[in-house]
Amino acid sequence: MTSPMYDASVPVFRQMLGSLKDLLAKTEAYATARKIEPDALLQARLFPDMFPLARQVLVACDFAKGVAARLAGVEPPSLPDAQCPGFAELNERIDAVLAFVEGLPVAQFADAAMRQITIQPGTPREKKFVGAHYLLHYGLPQFFFHVTTTYAIARHNGVELAKRDYMGKY
Amino acid sequence: MTSPMYDASVPVFRQMLGSLKDLLAKTEAYATARKIEPDALLQARLFPDMFPLARQVLVACDFAKGVAARLAGVEPPSLPDAQCPGFAELNERIDAVLAFVEGLPVAQFADAAMRQITIQPGTPREKKFVGAHYLLHYGLPQFFFHVTTTYAIARHNGVELAKRDYMGKY
Repeated sequence: MTSPMYDASVPVFRQMLGSLKDLLAKTEAYATARKIEPDALLQARLFPDMFPLARQVLVACDFAKGVAARLAGVEPPSLPDAQCPGFAELNERIDAVLAFVEGLPVAQFADAAMRQITIQPGTPREKKFVGAHYLLHYGLPQFFFHVTTTYAIARHNGVELAKRDYMGKY
Repeated sequence: MTSPMYDASVPVFRQMLGSLKDLLAKTEAYATARKIEPDALLQARLFPDMFPLARQVLVACDFAKGVAARLAGVEPPSLPDAQCPGFAELNERIDAVLAFVEGLPVAQFADAAMRQITIQPGTPREKKFVGAHYLLHYGLPQFFFHVTTTYAIARHNGVELAKRDYMGKY
């Protein structure tokens, strides 16, 4: 069986989380080759009040996990954040989120398009969506934002990446 | 009538092209207030071999136009690029692309999910997709990449923006 809401979420997250792992591998290799302290890259930011690279990865993971879970009508698993995650912790997080989203049965997404979803982007402000609108107009834009910004920070710091590294396997 | 491929493309492009216009308006206001030469921002890059801000906007527009057109089975309109587009030209481009995608009839997207689409990301290499895969795994990731990178360049150069400026009206 197939479901449009499944197809527009889990396989897209799989593609881009895969590319995020490749971006991190190249970033780590660059740090090693140039004897750069890992945190000099993982804590790099494009502007002082933006999240650093490591946090961009974690937030991308949070959106993949949370969006897929809400569409499937299940509680997202709680994954506690390390204080200063290194490359190993970030890879573990991506793997855990990949395992979670890939473990969601397609059948759980049958009613996802019309499922009522409430988010709290700024407490106490609430926003209610149906699932299809939530995915297309909130979840995917947010998710892609943090994957792209991870790429942007790495590129800005000299990691040799090209668009195909961002695109992953499509 | 409605169509899942229409819903996952045209309204998403509308939201994000709207946010792109707002980002540009804030970037232009920042340049004016600080007496910054417009091209100092429009030609700013995160790294020397990445596209500058103005080009990110144009490429985002190209993806919105091209993806929507291919899904609808029509030829995308040719919009010649100015050599060094200013804020006015970029806004005109966004408006032209918005008018084009909003003018596409929903009925044209009825067969879009299974439509055969061929792209040439690197000549002579060709890649063939069906429409649904093309949109979700190629078109949207590319489009969001260039919108986010526009935001990233503006933020990196001090324009006061927050995530809600990127998200637009959702």
